[in-house]
Amino acid sequence: MVDILTMKKRVCAAEGHLIDTGNLSLILNTILSEGGDYHIVKFTVGKTPDKTSSLEFELIASGTEELQALADKLTQLGVFEKQVPSAQLEPVEINRHAPERFYVTTNHRTEVYFQGKWYEVLDQRMDAALAWDGAQQSFSCRKLRELKQGDLVVCGSDSVRVYPAAVAERIDGFSFMSNEVSSERSDRAAIYQVAQAMTELKKSGGKTVVVCGPVVVHTGASGYLANMIRHGYIQGFLSGNAVAVHDLEAQFFGTSLGVDLETGKVVEHGHNHHMRAINAIYKYGSIADAVKAGVITGGLMYEIVASGIPYCLAGSIRDDGPLPETENDMIEAQHQYAEIIHDADMIIMLSTMLHAIGTGNMTPSWVKMICIDINPAVVTKLADRGSAQTMSIVSDVGLFLKALAEQLEL
Amino acid sequence: MVDILTMKKRVCAAEGHLIDTGNLSLILNTILSEGGDYHIVKFTVGKTPDKTSSLEFELIASGTEELQALADKLTQLGVFEKQVPSAQLEPVEINRHAPERFYVTTNHRTEVYFQGKWYEVLDQRMDAALAWDGAQQSFSCRKLRELKQGDLVVCGSDSVRVYPAAVAERIDGFSFMSNEVSSERSDRAAIYQVAQAMTELKKSGGKTVVVCGPVVVHTGASGYLANMIRHGYIQGFLSGNAVAVHDLEAQFFGTSLGVDLETGKVVEHGHNHHMRAINAIYKYGSIADAVKAGVITGGLMYEIVASGIPYCLAGSIRDDGPLPETENDMIEAQHQYAEIIHDADMIIMLSTMLHAIGTGNMTPSWVKMICIDINPAVVTKLADRGSAQTMSIVSDVGLFLKALAEQLEL
Amino acid sequence: MVDILTMKKRVCAAEGHLIDTGNLSLILNTILSEGGDYHIVKFTVGKTPDKTSSLEFELIASGTEELQALADKLTQLGVFEKQVPSAQLEPVEINRHAPERFYVTTNHRTEVYFQGKWYEVLDQRMDAALAWDGAQQSFSCRKLRELKQGDLVVCGSDSVRVYPAAVAERIDGFSFMSNEVSSERSDRAAIYQVAQAMTELKKSGGKTVVVCGPVVVHTGASGYLANMIRHGYIQGFLSGNAVAVHDLEAQFFGTSLGVDLETGKVVEHGHNHHMRAINAIYKYGSIADAVKAGVITGGLMYEIVASGIPYCLAGSIRDDGPLPETENDMIEAQHQYAEIIHDADMIIMLSTMLHAIGTGNMTPSWVKMICIDINPAVVTKLADRGSAQTMSIVSDVGLFLKALAEQLEL
Amino acid sequence: MVDILTMKKRVCAAEGHLIDTGNLSLILNTILSEGGDYHIVKFTVGKTPDKTSSLEFELIASGTEELQALADKLTQLGVFEKQVPSAQLEPVEINRHAPERFYVTTNHRTEVYFQGKWYEVLDQRMDAALAWDGAQQSFSCRKLRELKQGDLVVCGSDSVRVYPAAVAERIDGFSFMSNEVSSERSDRAAIYQVAQAMTELKKSGGKTVVVCGPVVVHTGASGYLANMIRHGYIQGFLSGNAVAVHDLEAQFFGTSLGVDLETGKVVEHGHNHHMRAINAIYKYGSIADAVKAGVITGGLMYEIVASGIPYCLAGSIRDDGPLPETENDMIEAQHQYAEIIHDADMIIMLSTMLHAIGTGNMTPSWVKMICIDINPAVVTKLADRGSAQTMSIVSDVGLFLKALAEQLEL
Repeated sequence: MVDILTMKKRVCAAEGHLIDTGNLSLILNTILSEGGDYHIVKFTVGKTPDKTSSLEFELIASGTEELQALADKLTQLGVFEKQVPSAQLEPVEINRHAPERFYVTTNHRTEVYFQGKWYEVLDQRMDAALAWDGAQQSFSCRKLRELKQGDLVVCGSDSVRVYPAAVAERIDGFSFMSNEVSSERSDRAAIYQVAQAMTELKKSGGKTVVVCGPVVVHTGASGYLANMIRHGYIQGFLSGNAVAVHDLEAQFFGTSLGVDLETGKVVEHGHNHHMRAINAIYKYGSIADAVKAGVITGGLMYEIVASGIPYCLAGSIRDDGPLPETENDMIEAQHQYAEIIHDADMIIMLSTMLHAIGTGNMTPSWVKMICIDINPAVVTKLADRGSAQTMSIVSDVGLFLKALAEQLEL
Repeated sequence: MVDILTMKKRVCAAEGHLIDTGNLSLILNTILSEGGDYHIVKFTVGKTPDKTSSLEFELIASGTEELQALADKLTQLGVFEKQVPSAQLEPVEINRHAPERFYVTTNHRTEVYFQGKWYEVLDQRMDAALAWDGAQQSFSCRKLRELKQGDLVVCGSDSVRVYPAAVAERIDGFSFMSNEVSSERSDRAAIYQVAQAMTELKKSGGKTVVVCGPVVVHTGASGYLANMIRHGYIQGFLSGNAVAVHDLEAQFFGTSLGVDLETGKVVEHGHNHHMRAINAIYKYGSIADAVKAGVITGGLMYEIVASGIPYCLAGSIRDDGPLPETENDMIEAQHQYAEIIHDADMIIMLSTMLHAIGTGNMTPSWVKMICIDINPAVVTKLADRGSAQTMSIVSDVGLFLKALAEQLEL
Repeated sequence: MVDILTMKKRVCAAEGHLIDTGNLSLILNTILSEGGDYHIVKFTVGKTPDKTSSLEFELIASGTEELQALADKLTQLGVFEKQVPSAQLEPVEINRHAPERFYVTTNHRTEVYFQGKWYEVLDQRMDAALAWDGAQQSFSCRKLRELKQGDLVVCGSDSVRVYPAAVAERIDGFSFMSNEVSSERSDRAAIYQVAQAMTELKKSGGKTVVVCGPVVVHTGASGYLANMIRHGYIQGFLSGNAVAVHDLEAQFFGTSLGVDLETGKVVEHGHNHHMRAINAIYKYGSIADAVKAGVITGGLMYEIVASGIPYCLAGSIRDDGPLPETENDMIEAQHQYAEIIHDADMIIMLSTMLHAIGTGNMTPSWVKMICIDINPAVVTKLADRGSAQTMSIVSDVGLFLKALAEQLEL
Repeated sequence: MVDILTMKKRVCAAEGHLIDTGNLSLILNTILSEGGDYHIVKFTVGKTPDKTSSLEFELIASGTEELQALADKLTQLGVFEKQVPSAQLEPVEINRHAPERFYVTTNHRTEVYFQGKWYEVLDQRMDAALAWDGAQQSFSCRKLRELKQGDLVVCGSDSVRVYPAAVAERIDGFSFMSNEVSSERSDRAAIYQVAQAMTELKKSGGKTVVVCGPVVVHTGASGYLANMIRHGYIQGFLSGNAVAVHDLEAQFFGTSLGVDLETGKVVEHGHNHHMRAINAIYKYGSIADAVKAGVITGGLMYEIVASGIPYCLAGSIRDDGPLPETENDMIEAQHQYAEIIHDADMIIMLSTMLHAIGTGNMTPSWVKMICIDINPAVVTKLADRGSAQTMSIVSDVGLFLKALAEQLEL
């Protein structure tokens, strides 16, 4: 289908666990579905499971531009040019505006070939540019809004090599359901695995971060989570204003969104409870001050403050109050989120699409992510936005936390 | 809006807890929204909560036919004619075919005024005709397909009085969430209440029936339910072929739908496990025979057979096998279902829209129904089909049963 | 159940369409479910539908505190004290912190009795305090965070009268499905009604505001909405960063979230398209500048800019970019939202839970709200948060907008 | 990990589009995840896209039994023994009960090697045994319940070769979303493709079968479908009792489930309309007779009867009536379904999980299946049950049919 007269070729290569990861299929199918063609020059299959394979092929496209576009796409699948050129760096001319051809990062481990050497990219995240720091002699991911005039940015993908999630990461326990979004599964195994991972990370001094939606409070399960924090299972807490508001409402009034947590009954017009909770905090100036004053003596926010783990309550358009601790500037909130997930080993997302997607955007693909939601669409959305490494559990977050707590030493 | 020249009137009445049940509002709004009008002749309000109210009003419509249509509708809200006439009985002329104007029942308690006396209707269910049994001197609900030529059937609604769900049934604990379909609620209270009701019914010799979907097995929760059966909490079991198939699959292979119940992993092509389970039963002739032969020694079907509680596996178009015990004739299956729920005090529906609606169709409105499903639409559908008394719990049925089992003496 | 020795009484009243609105039932049931009691002194029923009813009753509770708590709750149902006292105003002592007993507003029309006169509350919204403006001689809703030391705030509810949504608002076409969340309904009628309302508002110079989620772009339906804006059907646009990003992505690349809008195919790694779209805008400085420069010549944002209607893109934790027009300060974004919905006649919420709840929080209950979402839980959540007047349509927003556009003059 | 002392080996092969289909990855990963090992003897890669690849490898397992189990699993991925033995046929000893080791079919194209020759299996479907017909000299899929004593059945998988869905079927338009279940997609492309396929099949004399749920009637879209039938786009109709009941209700009363299809309003107690519709049919004896009598003059059932296309209404436990045409015996209903889908080119499933799964169970994997449902879980369930070839559209079926009808010549 590629016209022989105008067609352009380039010799490309890929290495690694090409077959078991399915990457080989993906590479070849991508070429075809994008209107290109290929001729395999050499394919050495790893004869045993521990051996890697290597592929060398002519990439064929109908013109120079098409060839480049195709090569750019294949970069993200781990394909690199056989004769890799040194990275082209172009300067930023207008603050925030990258050169047109800037390379857009994925969340996978990435290297840049520059002046005869491969550099591993720092601060890996998706949707960033690759900026060169001459002083540090390093490439790192930088968001567009942080680009300053004069910054040097990688353009094109010819010198970039991406390492898609490898088999080692995919055949451990955490991947078992990675492509499956179903409520028709036993939760027992999932709960056991999450508990094991949390326990191991606690022992080894690892870092588990929780991203938490208000349903955790509404379902009466915040006590389980608070207990996990008290016992050192959680090293960072990401959320919004609502979790804190309803946790405080529960502490002060025993309700969440006006629903009695003991009886499940709607307390008529108990909806103003959350406003009175906010008002109480305003009196003391902040949640932390209210804890100090002895007004708050338990619950999720209490344990967070008492344990001293870093947390961020990101504001949103739907917030009541907001609470004094809520960060209302979204740029600053994203910055704080990124700080808190830095070096995280595992991120557990509890029924919050908004904050889960926000966190997923800034998380490298090798960090374990677990997403629990009663709505299967949430997990689909997370994967559609690039966070495909997520282990998805379609369940009731309240009962899930209860069952999880039973498996931990609390 | 009713034309004064053609309009027709009738004096109607209603009694009972008209205000606190909201029935008074419903009656008046129905009149207006159907294009009728009213003039209240007398309204005596129950001055204290235990007192009933009584209403007498002129019902006004634009013509004779409209008046009758409106009166028919109001019947279902408990309105009756002030001067109630004796029921008109018309004979069935063709088997299964009721006279055109036959009264269609609701699932609410119903009385018929006939020859100077009020008769309470037997075998109350929705969507039936009211047939007169001269020998027994009684009215009972009869399905169209059971009507025989010559049967006498109530026509029109003028002699019918319906008792909509009264306050006594609505303000006990079970109604607390009846109109609410939300996953944002604490399950704790709901679980506690269900456990309480089950315990009381066990003690008092009441009857709890379970309607069970295969997700109970897929989520690894069938052991909890089996345990409840063994301990005498369940007096009837309604389901389909799939629950039994996957329960047997779990007993024989440790999988459900080919998914390992311990590890949660998909056993590659373990999907044929369920066929091998069916094949094993075919060898012995039936589940009961396989139990006798000592081939099945535990699980849901084992406990059902061992306990001797009545059960029915209703066939469906999607069945594999089906198992020998599965009832493939839908008329017969409905008959068996109706037998099993007869005199039930409580029906617990576990994640099965099909069987839940089937059961709801034949259950009087005063039987407690609890419906647990992860999909909020299921509960909405149940209510849309008339089973409005259902207590709805949007949750993960596997974790729900686990938590429920913890509250029972097992 | 109320102890006769300690019980306290107060004479209360309520007026209006008490029966057909169901308010009478709600009032009496609330008293009972909260442990109180009542004795009806006088009840005058509106004998014909256009007449209002009036109720006078002794409210009974087990003590002074309980009586006050109960009275506070009943206020929100339109109950007022027979002998209404002048409002108690207490000063704010700490910025943002209202006096403990401050009255928390609902979204219903509200009046305050003060110094012998009833004042209608300005800027009605839920979850606010009632502040007295001595200069203007008026009460208005004020958010806690806007309270300044010395502000005078209404405390208790004894002098407050609330007008719950009245029958006139509830029996027009827009309420027909208000309590129903079902995908099992004909959309035809709903679409027709929305189209009618939009057409009438356009003709009469009314104000229709749209709250828009990115699914409108993903489903390829943004062109229909853009067309409605061009033809003057929309007077305000509320959204987040993502709608604008993906609309621009669609303009520049024909994709949305990397999915080709024509073919529906995932463009391999087309996910970086949205980053290139953002980068293009950064070049020009803003969307408006890019429109001026002739770079953007169509689509949703183009029509918004070209038509000059007010809009706000509220930032969030999940934003890429964000675009220069996105408001990243949540306090300011809420302020802009409130400005835009001011005096709106109808608000149409298109598949965005976050912004829909945010908007619902600041909208009086008499503004028509229509919420279209494929997920029935979204509508339930909106109602749970007090926006019960919403007409809910469970449907595919893309096909909904297509069908709606066919009913408008475009 | 496989113990070298006890391990067993077998030489296996696979051919075809191993790479682009992802089958190679699946084969190797299955071996590893099941605890086996492999050594690749020879791998010839198809150097250009049209060339097939061939793989020869030693399959290694920890014992004889494990090796056989693993080989059985790999059969389903298209792996066959290098030295394929003649099929072992064992006789059925008890009616319905296959020999223990009977081969359970998939829905993929299958061949059996027997007495020196490969036989293509007839009547391909999942979950059947492979029975040898000596007279016809053929193998065909036979359900367990149809096995008779003395039937010869294939045991083990060593002589079976399965052809998993090949690339040719997967890269045509219909596969584009096959693994994606999202409401965040443009429906336009999907609708266009379905319309194209329907149009081509009509022209070419192909066979399109519809599986239809009652929501098609509830959403007011049955007229579009009826129109497609009238214009010859549909060659078979599978459904249950409810679709017919509500279609007749709509014809007689203009309502569906008591909801007015024009206004969308709930007709108070219009729920008895569907009973009156059933009663009317009982009068004439059947739907067909009512059509003949001129009582039914339009709608879905009318067009089905008038067009003479084959149809089956499968009964269920939730049926009202049921209608005379409803098949209440599930064995017979499955038989009729299978007859109707025989040789179908495309099956369109409209919002009915029950009948869609039932149909999927008996459909070979090379028949195009399209499933439209507003609930993403339905499509997930269909795939979990083996019907992975389904093109999934998460949308509102009513608006979908409207938009589809606009693309057809009606």
